[in-house]
Amino acid sequence: MLYSNLFTRTRKQAPKDEVTVNAKLLVQAGFVSKLMAGVYSFLPLGLRVLRKIENIIREEMDVIGGQEVYLPALHPAENWKTTSGWDKIDVLFKIKSRTGKDYALGQSHEEVITPLVKEYVRSYKDLPIYVYQIQSKYRDELRAKSGILRGKEFGMKDMYSFDLNQADFLKFYKQAKKAYLKVFQRCGLTAKVTEASGGDFSQKISYEFMVLTKAGEDDILYCDKCEYCINLDIAKTKAGDKCPKCQIGRLIKARASEVGNVFDLGSKYSKDFNFYVLDEKGKKVYPIMGCYGIGVTRLLGVIVEKYHDEKGIVWPKTVSPFQIHLVSLGDDNKVKNKALRVYQELLGKGIEVIWDDREKVSAGEKLAEADLLGVPIRLVISDKTKDKIEYRERESKKIKLLSSAEILASL
Amino acid sequence: MLYSNLFTRTRKQAPKDEVTVNAKLLVQAGFVSKLMAGVYSFLPLGLRVLRKIENIIREEMDVIGGQEVYLPALHPAENWKTTSGWDKIDVLFKIKSRTGKDYALGQSHEEVITPLVKEYVRSYKDLPIYVYQIQSKYRDELRAKSGILRGKEFGMKDMYSFDLNQADFLKFYKQAKKAYLKVFQRCGLTAKVTEASGGDFSQKISYEFMVLTKAGEDDILYCDKCEYCINLDIAKTKAGDKCPKCQIGRLIKARASEVGNVFDLGSKYSKDFNFYVLDEKGKKVYPIMGCYGIGVTRLLGVIVEKYHDEKGIVWPKTVSPFQIHLVSLGDDNKVKNKALRVYQELLGKGIEVIWDDREKVSAGEKLAEADLLGVPIRLVISDKTKDKIEYRERESKKIKLLSSAEILASL
Repeated sequence: MLYSNLFTRTRKQAPKDEVTVNAKLLVQAGFVSKLMAGVYSFLPLGLRVLRKIENIIREEMDVIGGQEVYLPALHPAENWKTTSGWDKIDVLFKIKSRTGKDYALGQSHEEVITPLVKEYVRSYKDLPIYVYQIQSKYRDELRAKSGILRGKEFGMKDMYSFDLNQADFLKFYKQAKKAYLKVFQRCGLTAKVTEASGGDFSQKISYEFMVLTKAGEDDILYCDKCEYCINLDIAKTKAGDKCPKCQIGRLIKARASEVGNVFDLGSKYSKDFNFYVLDEKGKKVYPIMGCYGIGVTRLLGVIVEKYHDEKGIVWPKTVSPFQIHLVSLGDDNKVKNKALRVYQELLGKGIEVIWDDREKVSAGEKLAEADLLGVPIRLVISDKTKDKIEYRERESKKIKLLSSAEILASL
Repeated sequence: MLYSNLFTRTRKQAPKDEVTVNAKLLVQAGFVSKLMAGVYSFLPLGLRVLRKIENIIREEMDVIGGQEVYLPALHPAENWKTTSGWDKIDVLFKIKSRTGKDYALGQSHEEVITPLVKEYVRSYKDLPIYVYQIQSKYRDELRAKSGILRGKEFGMKDMYSFDLNQADFLKFYKQAKKAYLKVFQRCGLTAKVTEASGGDFSQKISYEFMVLTKAGEDDILYCDKCEYCINLDIAKTKAGDKCPKCQIGRLIKARASEVGNVFDLGSKYSKDFNFYVLDEKGKKVYPIMGCYGIGVTRLLGVIVEKYHDEKGIVWPKTVSPFQIHLVSLGDDNKVKNKALRVYQELLGKGIEVIWDDREKVSAGEKLAEADLLGVPIRLVISDKTKDKIEYRERESKKIKLLSSAEILASL
């Protein structure tokens, strides 16, 4: 992509109305734009990152047998009345149409997926079924001050599992947990798995995937020796206590952001929608359901919370909008022609590259913007680099002078 | 994809609550599922088609310099009040949040994109700008009986152009028109370009891209000799009249469906949002805007309206969910092993293939379902085909017996 073609601009200063690092940097660098509190537009650079995260999630959901669908956000009120969500869920956006009909905006999709899957299941042999989507969710949040971490409209991957019995469900539950850890790891994050309370409708224990970050909204206790981790809300221990699991480590209190969760829904929704199958013996069985969420836009924000320094964002390679940020300095024709050649060579190799080809922009400004945007590798071509190219890693700040052949070979 | 893994099923009969061919076939074949009138879920097969159409559109928008963004669907009421849309647009869904704030659901995005682009434009040199998105739109429609042709929630590509003056705008307008015809052509459709009235806010003439189909909601007059075409609503001629353009052909009346439109918005929105630049001479100029829409889900429906026969859908290759529908008949191990080999060979060549690997399903049922699903090429392996494979084109119904090498070579 040519930088000069991009309609967005970086800002010299972080926006003053944002309090979190993710929003400050993402707005300043031109990745997102705030429409109102908790609602953001994704601009060309931000959309590229979002699509990469979505594709990582998609791949891992497909690996465990997930089938992708795309469900509507506009729901008939009846479905929410069937599950009591219409009255009980305070974040549910409600709409009265001009014909007098009531609708809800999906804040989750159990109310749509359960009757939908019911349509297609005729026998216990049709189970298990795992269905997911990547879609916008709507929640009437009272506070939405954490940038893209907590929104009124936000991107989510939600998967639903339908199993014949608790044992099958638990088997898939474990696979999903592994797939989730893989997703976060591919996004450069280490998530801790906490036990938490089971949400509105369930007394069962659910799991939350927590990434340690000051911008988080949860307090957790985790063991400094083993994998034990628990949400402070339901912990019977406190910071400094001996770990109840390994009996060796000590518990540390930390602030964290929830990037995913899995809920054991039991047969709550299958019963509400009278969705049953006859098992081998002809007995009515209501499928056991699970719900598995990843906040896709939130994940993007958490990555920024973790990967930044005083100069800007430092994207992990896997989700960076580009692999290479090519900068040509000065408006000398020789430099520009060389940069054009390198740009085309990189594109020809299938490498995603943004070339800052702007004229009459100072070297200082171009290099500061490259740091702000946070692409992992910066290449600089100027009359000082002669027949070489300056290669610099955003993260390590290591600088080398390399030939274009050496650079291509290293990628 | 293995057919046995797919959670959806075809129905023996078309659904009785649908009146249009597109909805009857898409629901019967398990591509979509109706949540309520005008609101459909996209199931795994339908989503594959939708993504292909979206990618065709994306490629053609990128060619003419479009920059992709993703804008929210939840809008602050203020933006709609600024343009008078809040009171004037009867299909606008309005939401009152629990804090008392008013929101609108995007039925179009001029109200969001105009102030957004304004943020980034500092000089007349920053223009032109072309921005597009592929996103869901919401309209409080009174009648929604045309399957996925007219929805309360539907997929749309909307592009917005910002130009310094009318001449630049008209230049881009022409490019966009060409790009649109290319999109429809790649989807297997021939669109006629009609002049129509300019919508709510404009006295200017707009263009509509019309595909002839009985399921359409518009009446048009078109010339049987030249490209002249006009919406009957604003025509001063009638069927049988001499063409006012070429003066040779005769006008024919036909039913058509609008798959795209382009509007000359003038400076209506730039003025509403006080978005101006100073031109070379320091004079205030309000950018000229254009809006370019393609109904993405509607397009999918129109393709089905055009491409079907009495047995089911007949997808054009470019948008088909798969290139090959492989059917193994009978539960003989030799047959199944051969089918597995062919399946893996095809996947290995990067060919999208669905293999109907189901056991204990009759030959008649499998072949009927293949016709219903409408994948362009069907391959049948049975004990009758011996060392060959039966190759059949869905459209021409031509059948040949070929070796797997011959089939791979032909693809």
